[in-house]
Amino acid sequence: MVEDLKQFRQWESRTPGHPENFETPGIEVTTGPLGQGIANAVGLALAEKHLAARFNKPDNEIIDHYTYCILGDGCQMEGIANEACSLAGHWGLGKLIAFYDDNHISIDGDTEIAFTESVEKRFEGLGWHVIWVKNGNTGFDEIRAAIKEAKAVKDRPTLIKFTTTIGYGSPNKSNSYSVHGSALGAKEVDATRNNLGWPYEPFHVPEDVKKHWSRHIREGAALESEWNAKFADYEKKYKEEAAVLKSIISGDLPAGWEKALPTYTPEIPADATRNLSQQNLNALANVLPGLIGGSADLASSNMTLLKKFGDFQSDSPAERNVRFGVREHGMGAICNGIALHSRGLIPYCATFFVFTDYMRGAIRLSALSEAGVIYVMTHDSIGLGEDGPTHQPIEHLASFRAMPNILMLRPADGNETAGAYKVAVLNRKRPSILALSRQKLPNLAGTSIEGVEKGGYIVSDNSTGNKPDVILIGTGSELEIAYKAGEDLRKEGKAVRVVSFVSWELFDEQSQAYKESVLPTAVTARVSIEAGSTFGWEKIVGSKGKAIGIDRFGASAPAGTIYKEFGITKEAVIAAAKELI
Amino acid sequence: MVEDLKQFRQWESRTPGHPENFETPGIEVTTGPLGQGIANAVGLALAEKHLAARFNKPDNEIIDHYTYCILGDGCQMEGIANEACSLAGHWGLGKLIAFYDDNHISIDGDTEIAFTESVEKRFEGLGWHVIWVKNGNTGFDEIRAAIKEAKAVKDRPTLIKFTTTIGYGSPNKSNSYSVHGSALGAKEVDATRNNLGWPYEPFHVPEDVKKHWSRHIREGAALESEWNAKFADYEKKYKEEAAVLKSIISGDLPAGWEKALPTYTPEIPADATRNLSQQNLNALANVLPGLIGGSADLASSNMTLLKKFGDFQSDSPAERNVRFGVREHGMGAICNGIALHSRGLIPYCATFFVFTDYMRGAIRLSALSEAGVIYVMTHDSIGLGEDGPTHQPIEHLASFRAMPNILMLRPADGNETAGAYKVAVLNRKRPSILALSRQKLPNLAGTSIEGVEKGGYIVSDNSTGNKPDVILIGTGSELEIAYKAGEDLRKEGKAVRVVSFVSWELFDEQSQAYKESVLPTAVTARVSIEAGSTFGWEKIVGSKGKAIGIDRFGASAPAGTIYKEFGITKEAVIAAAKELI
Repeated sequence: MVEDLKQFRQWESRTPGHPENFETPGIEVTTGPLGQGIANAVGLALAEKHLAARFNKPDNEIIDHYTYCILGDGCQMEGIANEACSLAGHWGLGKLIAFYDDNHISIDGDTEIAFTESVEKRFEGLGWHVIWVKNGNTGFDEIRAAIKEAKAVKDRPTLIKFTTTIGYGSPNKSNSYSVHGSALGAKEVDATRNNLGWPYEPFHVPEDVKKHWSRHIREGAALESEWNAKFADYEKKYKEEAAVLKSIISGDLPAGWEKALPTYTPEIPADATRNLSQQNLNALANVLPGLIGGSADLASSNMTLLKKFGDFQSDSPAERNVRFGVREHGMGAICNGIALHSRGLIPYCATFFVFTDYMRGAIRLSALSEAGVIYVMTHDSIGLGEDGPTHQPIEHLASFRAMPNILMLRPADGNETAGAYKVAVLNRKRPSILALSRQKLPNLAGTSIEGVEKGGYIVSDNSTGNKPDVILIGTGSELEIAYKAGEDLRKEGKAVRVVSFVSWELFDEQSQAYKESVLPTAVTARVSIEAGSTFGWEKIVGSKGKAIGIDRFGASAPAGTIYKEFGITKEAVIAAAKELI
Repeated sequence: MVEDLKQFRQWESRTPGHPENFETPGIEVTTGPLGQGIANAVGLALAEKHLAARFNKPDNEIIDHYTYCILGDGCQMEGIANEACSLAGHWGLGKLIAFYDDNHISIDGDTEIAFTESVEKRFEGLGWHVIWVKNGNTGFDEIRAAIKEAKAVKDRPTLIKFTTTIGYGSPNKSNSYSVHGSALGAKEVDATRNNLGWPYEPFHVPEDVKKHWSRHIREGAALESEWNAKFADYEKKYKEEAAVLKSIISGDLPAGWEKALPTYTPEIPADATRNLSQQNLNALANVLPGLIGGSADLASSNMTLLKKFGDFQSDSPAERNVRFGVREHGMGAICNGIALHSRGLIPYCATFFVFTDYMRGAIRLSALSEAGVIYVMTHDSIGLGEDGPTHQPIEHLASFRAMPNILMLRPADGNETAGAYKVAVLNRKRPSILALSRQKLPNLAGTSIEGVEKGGYIVSDNSTGNKPDVILIGTGSELEIAYKAGEDLRKEGKAVRVVSFVSWELFDEQSQAYKESVLPTAVTARVSIEAGSTFGWEKIVGSKGKAIGIDRFGASAPAGTIYKEFGITKEAVIAAAKELI
């Protein structure tokens, strides 16, 4: 609508400064941060190839579309773009067509100052088909021919390099960085109008242009009817597949899916939550047709392989184990593309928790653009041991607790891992990060899926009248420590409540009454323990409580040694509690 | 030492799980997270080329060394590696020689499953000289010839691809991922010994091997003497340059350097802290010979150009403005390499604050490896306005306040920006992040460099006896709001203290008495205001105080509108204060 254009960059308009999928119909992904768009496009094209392989029939190719992406010089410089494009080449995403706007201008001026590589050669190395359109400004026949050629190449993605002039038509500002983000100004607008022979008022669209373009409404409607008829035919012939495809498109979860989640009792031997995560993923793969994902070259450490499926590869695209290679940032953005392709596709991806640092740009866009990606992040603390400080997260839990619209979940055992997956699957417009342990953790009495859904809950308690002497709070692998400290303190006659704080965001969303029932205002004797930064814990333990954590980098040694040296111990919890009681 | 090897991965050993520059002499940079090493190497080679161009004389090439780097398949997949290598090609870093260990095995198995690009072709596209050594296991002559060839190519960096076998010598485990990180096991160790004809006990080094290798001690000592003599000659002939070079090598700051920092009075017109930052950078460039840096294609927005210098380029390497292109992650890691090359090199780098998400892996390594990089991060809040939520930081301040060994500084005006630079330059083993505004901010009475050095300090106060009715706390662009709210409240007869909280880390390091003098325990009426996540603010305002902030994503609109709609206003501060008094 013309009215929307007039509201460009204004409060609550449908035309914000960068396109936002949640603001404006027709916008498929939120981009703006460079390189994300092309990586999203790889995800969209992966989704198409995957769904086509699963659902197309010889007599009815119900999934059949191209993915187009426009990217500029800046996108080409970003590492994430190279990561995603290397995968696109590897996967042979033949229906991905990328338009590279080679205008050799970026914000700092001519790209000559920082970008002199041969993009064509690089993309040939990445296994792409490359076409160069020398007159990208007005070479319409050349452009049409290039797109036709790109479509004809089916085994590889195509990059069409269009050499263009930025600000084409502006006599004094074209081919300069000054047209990137600033308005031309009234004088130069006039000069440009004259130069292009465009005599109309601002926002006026001449009748013949309107007529020419509005044919797309008719054509689009016809294409939609055609597809609907095709789907009706598909549904008639392939009832079962059609139902599954429908649920993948709509995002409706199959009834009773959550019954597939495993439950655990304290008798079940201790296990790492990364292993429990794999049990959940495999259980969910049986009931969620849209679950698809993998790891950035750590599948055997992150425990993310779906046992009943093979690898998604160029020649086996119906499979659901995706091998991302060591490309965390590209992986996240590809998953955003998958999630936003069809609401019922549930992508998960994995690496060590510390390497969320490599993919934070994509994770933030999951949160902002409401892409319900599940981030399976293992090796979530100093508990990983010998790999040392480069691999040991410290500040990461806090850093995601501060991020809007994302769920940071740190389950403590089997039931909590199942609960974390329940929450993650239900939240289709909010991504989840699961922080999972490398080390074994016992199944604790009192943990539950329902507890996880509330974010924070009582795991064990011997107090009465909502008046414990002390509240011990733990998350993930440290819940066990709090739990055992509670047992010891009770032997000394104390009334101790142990609380699991698996997700701060979910707890924040509970009623005041519920919160008071878990953390009564009157009880200021509170001790928290978490093998990570104490930053933010004052909110939970209050100014009179004590937060036990780690406010330095980790160290390389066996995990038990590091826990002891860093004071992340039962003894520390008991000592802190005694000081407060 | 053999004893060190026996302590592999043990507590406080010199042989941790990944090499750490701060643990072990001879380790130049901390790597481990993939792709960082090659990007560090680009920074090291840049430093060499830069210093050589500045200090070498026709009769004395005092700076003259190669930078070698070993990288694997995993590093090659990471986007950061492509970013850094694209720059290395652009800059023509002919003395950078990268050994690519092409063993076609990564943790998930054969690289065929995720990595089938042509690395050679990509590197040729990036402007590198590429050599392939087919027998990287035992082709010693081939290897020597390749290194010789690499050294002979002076205008481009060289990638030598060595095709190798991982776990070479192990009869049953070589060429498989199982030798990546796990011990071979006693049986396979025996089999490997037999296979390689190595009959010795563990940790035994035979005499002839010891003799062969220990010649390097002698040779190294000779090379050192030779260089020292060369430097003595240099010092004799080029006294002034020698003194500067010495300070760059040692890291000793020139006496009185801090006098160059500009100071400001309230009469000086309002300005954006990004502009004030540029005044500081240019003032410092006059007195700090090691200051070198630039932006990721946002120099004209980040305001980072040094006016008296030109661009560091292939043919002008003595200059100090580095053009990183849109490669944030590579930029950070390159700066780590520069910082760790010579303690007196002070690299700074810049982008929008929100894009720290793209480079967090490198920033964390600055902190861990004690590289005193200065991160100049502008457009630090919703105050950037129209670009919208993808460009507006929310959780970023909190996320860095939670990170160990880094200074997160958010100056409010001219004096505070100068103070932030003073702190950043002084902290040579701790990186600093400066969060700077796009919008203009007035110079406030009461701000000071000394205040910034304490992290938090009183900017204005009409209370007596350390008993204000209320304490208003602001940072950066919101200090002005707190300041004005204080003025209004005083007109109503209140005793109001206004505190600037420019760096939480520095405040934490102050004495208990100082902290009490700024934030007296008895005064629980505290209101903070910051255009970012409130996460963590409970620590400062206490459970009875009120933190005004933003716990959602931003929006695209003029900055003033967003501030008003989000309630980041003087009125909100006054209302909150009145509720508490």
